[in-house]
Amino acid sequence: MATYMQDWPLLVGRILDHAARFHPKRPVISRDTEGPISTTDWKGIHHGAKQVTQALRTLGIGPGDVVGVMGWNTARMLKIWYGVPGAGAALHTLNPRLFADQLTYVVTHAEDKAIFVDRDLLPVILGVRDRIPNVRHIIVMTDRAHMPDNAPDDAICFEEWIAEHDGDTDWERVDETAPCGICYTSGTTGNPKGVVYTHRSNTLHSLASQSPDMLGLSSRDRLMPVVPLFHANGWSTGYTGPMSGASMAMPGNNMTPAGLYEMLQHGVTVTAAVPTVWLGLLQYLDAEKKTLDSLKRVVIGGSSCPRAVIEAFQDKYGVQVMHAWGMTEMSPLGTVCTFKPEVAALDHEARLDVQETVGHPPFSVDLKIVDDAGADMPWDGVAQGRLLTRGDAIVGTYLKHDEPAVDGDNWFDTGDVATMDENGYVRITDRSKDVIKSGGEWISSIELENAAVGHPDVVEAAAIGVPHEKWGERPVLVVVPKEGATPDKAEILARVAKVVAKWQVPDDVVFRAEIPHTATGKISKLQLRAAVSPEDYQLGG
Amino acid sequence: MATYMQDWPLLVGRILDHAARFHPKRPVISRDTEGPISTTDWKGIHHGAKQVTQALRTLGIGPGDVVGVMGWNTARMLKIWYGVPGAGAALHTLNPRLFADQLTYVVTHAEDKAIFVDRDLLPVILGVRDRIPNVRHIIVMTDRAHMPDNAPDDAICFEEWIAEHDGDTDWERVDETAPCGICYTSGTTGNPKGVVYTHRSNTLHSLASQSPDMLGLSSRDRLMPVVPLFHANGWSTGYTGPMSGASMAMPGNNMTPAGLYEMLQHGVTVTAAVPTVWLGLLQYLDAEKKTLDSLKRVVIGGSSCPRAVIEAFQDKYGVQVMHAWGMTEMSPLGTVCTFKPEVAALDHEARLDVQETVGHPPFSVDLKIVDDAGADMPWDGVAQGRLLTRGDAIVGTYLKHDEPAVDGDNWFDTGDVATMDENGYVRITDRSKDVIKSGGEWISSIELENAAVGHPDVVEAAAIGVPHEKWGERPVLVVVPKEGATPDKAEILARVAKVVAKWQVPDDVVFRAEIPHTATGKISKLQLRAAVSPEDYQLGG
Repeated sequence: MATYMQDWPLLVGRILDHAARFHPKRPVISRDTEGPISTTDWKGIHHGAKQVTQALRTLGIGPGDVVGVMGWNTARMLKIWYGVPGAGAALHTLNPRLFADQLTYVVTHAEDKAIFVDRDLLPVILGVRDRIPNVRHIIVMTDRAHMPDNAPDDAICFEEWIAEHDGDTDWERVDETAPCGICYTSGTTGNPKGVVYTHRSNTLHSLASQSPDMLGLSSRDRLMPVVPLFHANGWSTGYTGPMSGASMAMPGNNMTPAGLYEMLQHGVTVTAAVPTVWLGLLQYLDAEKKTLDSLKRVVIGGSSCPRAVIEAFQDKYGVQVMHAWGMTEMSPLGTVCTFKPEVAALDHEARLDVQETVGHPPFSVDLKIVDDAGADMPWDGVAQGRLLTRGDAIVGTYLKHDEPAVDGDNWFDTGDVATMDENGYVRITDRSKDVIKSGGEWISSIELENAAVGHPDVVEAAAIGVPHEKWGERPVLVVVPKEGATPDKAEILARVAKVVAKWQVPDDVVFRAEIPHTATGKISKLQLRAAVSPEDYQLGG
Repeated sequence: MATYMQDWPLLVGRILDHAARFHPKRPVISRDTEGPISTTDWKGIHHGAKQVTQALRTLGIGPGDVVGVMGWNTARMLKIWYGVPGAGAALHTLNPRLFADQLTYVVTHAEDKAIFVDRDLLPVILGVRDRIPNVRHIIVMTDRAHMPDNAPDDAICFEEWIAEHDGDTDWERVDETAPCGICYTSGTTGNPKGVVYTHRSNTLHSLASQSPDMLGLSSRDRLMPVVPLFHANGWSTGYTGPMSGASMAMPGNNMTPAGLYEMLQHGVTVTAAVPTVWLGLLQYLDAEKKTLDSLKRVVIGGSSCPRAVIEAFQDKYGVQVMHAWGMTEMSPLGTVCTFKPEVAALDHEARLDVQETVGHPPFSVDLKIVDDAGADMPWDGVAQGRLLTRGDAIVGTYLKHDEPAVDGDNWFDTGDVATMDENGYVRITDRSKDVIKSGGEWISSIELENAAVGHPDVVEAAAIGVPHEKWGERPVLVVVPKEGATPDKAEILARVAKVVAKWQVPDDVVFRAEIPHTATGKISKLQLRAAVSPEDYQLGG
């Protein structure tokens, strides 16, 4: 068709094509599941991805199909990352930590026709195989010599399978809005919901994410995603890396601080993971008296990053921290805390204050905060509201849902409660289902918890709202004391009173030996509320 | 429509929406045509653009219409840049230096319904007004007090006209492939050809152009486009600035070195123009003993940038040079010379060698070099071929042309001849219509000319191919000597022989008092070839 501008659909295969053409020899370093660290390059990944596309076609897999993958961040994962969408199918990333029932549900619901699996994770798949008859092929991501003993007779050996093809093929020319990837959210209630990324949304999201005020990736970077590619679209690193011509380092299945440190020292300039990973690494660096020689930037997201972690990276190791926020439904990056000029001009402490926010969005992500009635809240850094978002890489409708996930104006409710300041910086204060509503005002459970865990005898704290005749709800703190310690209620509340307004201070503290958690390690407020009854606490007037 | 990801069309109005929401107070500094330098911000530009949209609707202008603009780089131009596409119409940029016949042709061909014009350029429009009856409205970009005396009675005063509107309106929701802008190419033969940018192509081009290895724009930058927005889509600065949340400085109609210097000293961090502008500025800096206090990067494109200019900016003023290449048909950026790691690792002189190339393309621009038969040429830094391109912001079909501008695989022939090296860096060696084909090999006319003008008594040089019985063509140099000088032919050829292979050295030198130029100041090889006959030179065997 003759069009003014060329008809050039946004297909993710073009991202890898670009890397292979213009950055062919840029290294992709990978800790393989067989043990050693190997090195290939974008040309090698491109060739392997094309082989995967060809091999999938021999299985009759193509447009409209879904293929699962359960594996670590390796060079092979990158080949699959492009090889599956290259065949026109959608790549469904599977979290190996899912409970068997959840795994069965998502594989069945998405109708995976085949599953790629790392050799050490094969038992997870085999554990549910009888319950997922839609999966016709299991492809074990290794060579013949390393095929596990427990592999079924009909399991396919990845390296043998792709070696039968020459890589000389075109990517399937699907529509740019065709499914490219699927990732299920781990809801605390109900069944997991499938987010379907399209070729278009992944490409646009990557263009925005690589920009200078987001990840700021260039061909001079070596990017190491510690965050697994199966977690929330891998924070888009599988796309932003090759799009920007960056080198990549894939840490495989060794997530120990020593293992990560070894990979970081392979010239990594930028890396990304959740705060707990970095807490472990910082302890390791401290204990072993190590330095970070090439690392320049660290992206921290997934949950709120403690100030101490930011300070340690920046002041002790000279590594810039980029606090980030997003969700599976957002492809996933929503905001990154880089410095607008008005922030860059602040002094050290004031900049650190800003770095505790999750930053600001790029073009293509719009945000607003609203009250319970849906009215806009001011961007004054104080008013809390439900955080809504819309954009080109944000969920419209979950897989096989009849109703859209958005309102009539395309706004998606993130489920987070946040403040925004005049510069557009977002501070996540709570999950909307956890926020405590007292006398018509909102109290952030996260603020109360952070203050309480500052007490030396407190291991963990959770704030919940309990019913109150006059105020609707009042906050109560549930606290796990340190082994053998008996912290004083008044002392804990005094700590909290230092950082919040008087009316926000919890009415009481309840001590517990432990607090219930979800499968992904977060506090289960749902279970906690059920486990705390009015006899357990005293309310004020 | 329920879609997996949100239906979020790529409309340029969203770029300005983003700037106004997340960078509202970022300054936009403008030298107004009335004289003074004024300051507004993205919120102000956004408000003004919406007023333009509203005001255009009162003239009955909307989707499907074309509106012309002849003006300098000012804050008002930015309001029009978004206000016209915001009304669903296409903005047709008019070069005030066009000859009357060309201007009449393009305004008639594009069917402009209205024209915005700066007060000092009004005579250019009035000079052809009788010949462009399709133009129903002339809007003079000033306030009532500054309306020129020669303004026709029915001319509209911009500031009065938009002041009647409150800016509270939605952008027109057109399809993302709808026309957004029109820019005609100045062909040396035939009629100018109209390139139609779409909302989608401009948005995608801006996303690629702001990336770290292209312009690398962030919210901490202040971008000054010296290149006029009417020239080749303004090198996309009208989009990349607000998309990245950068501040902007608009230099207005004062293009003197002193005028530009004054604006640069208003905190500009990055600027863009053709080499001749920078030659003038460097002479000014040198003569006036000035320094560049805030400038960090300078983008140089439009024609080949002399090494001395690169060296002066970098070594004397500490400003990084980014040599760039593109064309009107490419929206326009094709390549930018930033440093891939293998280049960053080179020593000073070797890096300068690379900086004489125009760099490498971002994701969404594909390139190849081919021989006359269309076969791929190697990327060895030596082999010259016709440079072809394809991508999401590259012309498909010119306005009102029946035939596409591309081949069956969407490759567009840039008309340039280039080498590419193993890292994908492009060196433009010639225009394909100017390259000299001798014995089946190609000789770069640019290389010969650059060597010849190195001679102290040579003002200008042009190499042309003349017919030769045995070799097909042989190069001959046409040289303009310095006033009163009589340079020696052998000396000139000896200079050339130092930089090219022996068989590439011209057979003869022809002296002329002047060389014909096109309207845009380039050497007209077409006229030159007609003006040089076999009696003028001697050929070898």
